[in-house]
Amino acid sequence: MSVTSAKGFRASGVAAGLKASGNPDLALVVNDGPLHAAAGVFTSNRVKAAPVQWSEQVLKGGTVAAVVLNSGGANACTGPAGFQDTHKTAEEAAALLDVSAAEIAVCSTGLIGVRLPMDALLGGLKTGTAALTADGGLDAATAIMTTDTVSKTAEAHGSGYTVGGMAKGAGMLAPGLATMLVVVTTDAAVEAEALDTALRAATRVTFDRVDSDGCMSTNDTVLLLASGASEVVPDPAEFQLVVTAVCADLARQLIGDAEGATKDIAVEVVNAASEDEAVQVARAVTRSNLFKCAMYGNDPNWGRVLSAVGTTDARFEPDRLSVAINGVWVCRDGGVGDDRDLVDLTGREVTVTVDLAAGGSAATVWTNDLTPGYVHENSAYSS
Amino acid sequence: MSVTSAKGFRASGVAAGLKASGNPDLALVVNDGPLHAAAGVFTSNRVKAAPVQWSEQVLKGGTVAAVVLNSGGANACTGPAGFQDTHKTAEEAAALLDVSAAEIAVCSTGLIGVRLPMDALLGGLKTGTAALTADGGLDAATAIMTTDTVSKTAEAHGSGYTVGGMAKGAGMLAPGLATMLVVVTTDAAVEAEALDTALRAATRVTFDRVDSDGCMSTNDTVLLLASGASEVVPDPAEFQLVVTAVCADLARQLIGDAEGATKDIAVEVVNAASEDEAVQVARAVTRSNLFKCAMYGNDPNWGRVLSAVGTTDARFEPDRLSVAINGVWVCRDGGVGDDRDLVDLTGREVTVTVDLAAGGSAATVWTNDLTPGYVHENSAYSS
Repeated sequence: MSVTSAKGFRASGVAAGLKASGNPDLALVVNDGPLHAAAGVFTSNRVKAAPVQWSEQVLKGGTVAAVVLNSGGANACTGPAGFQDTHKTAEEAAALLDVSAAEIAVCSTGLIGVRLPMDALLGGLKTGTAALTADGGLDAATAIMTTDTVSKTAEAHGSGYTVGGMAKGAGMLAPGLATMLVVVTTDAAVEAEALDTALRAATRVTFDRVDSDGCMSTNDTVLLLASGASEVVPDPAEFQLVVTAVCADLARQLIGDAEGATKDIAVEVVNAASEDEAVQVARAVTRSNLFKCAMYGNDPNWGRVLSAVGTTDARFEPDRLSVAINGVWVCRDGGVGDDRDLVDLTGREVTVTVDLAAGGSAATVWTNDLTPGYVHENSAYSS
Repeated sequence: MSVTSAKGFRASGVAAGLKASGNPDLALVVNDGPLHAAAGVFTSNRVKAAPVQWSEQVLKGGTVAAVVLNSGGANACTGPAGFQDTHKTAEEAAALLDVSAAEIAVCSTGLIGVRLPMDALLGGLKTGTAALTADGGLDAATAIMTTDTVSKTAEAHGSGYTVGGMAKGAGMLAPGLATMLVVVTTDAAVEAEALDTALRAATRVTFDRVDSDGCMSTNDTVLLLASGASEVVPDPAEFQLVVTAVCADLARQLIGDAEGATKDIAVEVVNAASEDEAVQVARAVTRSNLFKCAMYGNDPNWGRVLSAVGTTDARFEPDRLSVAINGVWVCRDGGVGDDRDLVDLTGREVTVTVDLAAGGSAATVWTNDLTPGYVHENSAYSS
């Protein structure tokens, strides 16, 4: 289960020497067709890394022959020289694969504000091209890891076709679109426009609804490539469900591997006046450091949930708000509810339910607890 | 230097038995006049504690004879019964002081979602009233402490009059208005409307510009009381400056005592297209957990500053952004600037300067680093 699960794709992951550790740091995903349709969503951060600026242009054409991904450097805030590095990467990959550079997407992840060692990267491209295989998906998923502790892959099946994918991301996880580096592939025969529709529908309810630390990256990219190798033209509704299943699986893995986390927390908002308001309220809770610290301490501190809800402009009456933690309604109608000692927070998975009593809409946003481990990891990352 | 620095005020601080520790937990500030003018600003959180709901009504009258403040319980999310507790507190204080309950402001701080032990509180009111003295300001400042490690008081002088104040607050410090419990007093002869103008102008550039952890409280209250005992009618501009000086001093003390912090960080945004945009950008940086972790690790990670700036809609061109950390321009024109090894982050005070190159406005927002100490303190607070 990976980017090579679907027919028509090859992949590789090699150590190009970008990481001081010597671990794999360069991945290639090649679409052997017959179709080369592609769609992408990118960070909405206005400070965009060079590879994002490049790939956004490539995706406008709706055609991607290959994706080059590197860890060991984000190539963000590197100025015109950094953009030239991305351009050169695409040109070199295009030459090696005998395609047009305008069909090469590039993704980078790692430290911001550092130029990539281009000699090492271009050398790695040659090695990586030679290593391409139809079962190289796991190697590719491994090569894009940064602070990830495990590689992340997924697979799901439609009627006669396959969708597979890989993701990296453990910190700086907050959406606005996308949230990390993700490549999803399919052997279904789907044109670029329909891919785009399916991908946006899928990311809206998956990657856009994980928020580990409220920090939006400069490099977030989610790509969906179709080879058409199954020769199956899928039902659009089913295709969207299958793509969503793969994205949901990967998104859940990102939360499960978030930096320093000891809890995976689903903040579920129900009875909202609209889905947008449900998301707004859920996001306010997921971004409350005090709430996240309480979760780390196994403390069902519902007051911190309510104080976060109160910062939003969603429709609700404060004295009709109710909150359940792992199924125990510790707050009812804006006041004290059931005994908080009934709440069992010893497991890794936590569900916080906020009832706005304002309508019929709902949404869930996933987050993590805030831990000393998160602080340690992110205070030492670049040193 | 305290709420009793100005003539015409008495204060006290006693142990009413609200805190399990037995520490002082009930403060009284009484305005002996001849004037009883007052103004207040309150949290903009829509989930407002009972004492905030009460005091907002009191302040509409522009007259405050006394303020009752308690630590050991926020009386927030306690429903109609909690509001009755606040009402009863005001009535009891009014009876003891022989004034109207409609002239008694009430402030509470501590855990959300727990009823106050009213017998203890009402008993403490009697003790507190008996303990009122013209030099009781420090006792009062001590009695409102929660996780504060030091009491916080300030004083400044105008032409013939004094302004003094006290504050509590160490976590859940983020504005929207006010940010904590603050009482400022003056013996200048100023009517309620002019007090309101001066207070709003002062809080806008002081308490509204500290953001320790991005979490907005349900109880934030800042009160300004005038006794007129100096018989001096101040120049309005000078008066505003003096009130601002006291508020700035107290705000700075709040940041200096923030939970678990090892750094006090001034995020200064310059050359913004407007002051609002400067504040928006500064606030985005102060709310980046990744930036705050880097500061804890003495890591001049300017990429995390830029990625936070990029989440705003302030006017700027990404390739014209520059960032200095403690005076070293580590990022110039959106790319790598001076050597980051030149940045000395060993001291407690840090200044981060963001140059938007978009206009002539500027603003500074204060924050702290994010530390394991913050996580520990806030994961164990209620247990």
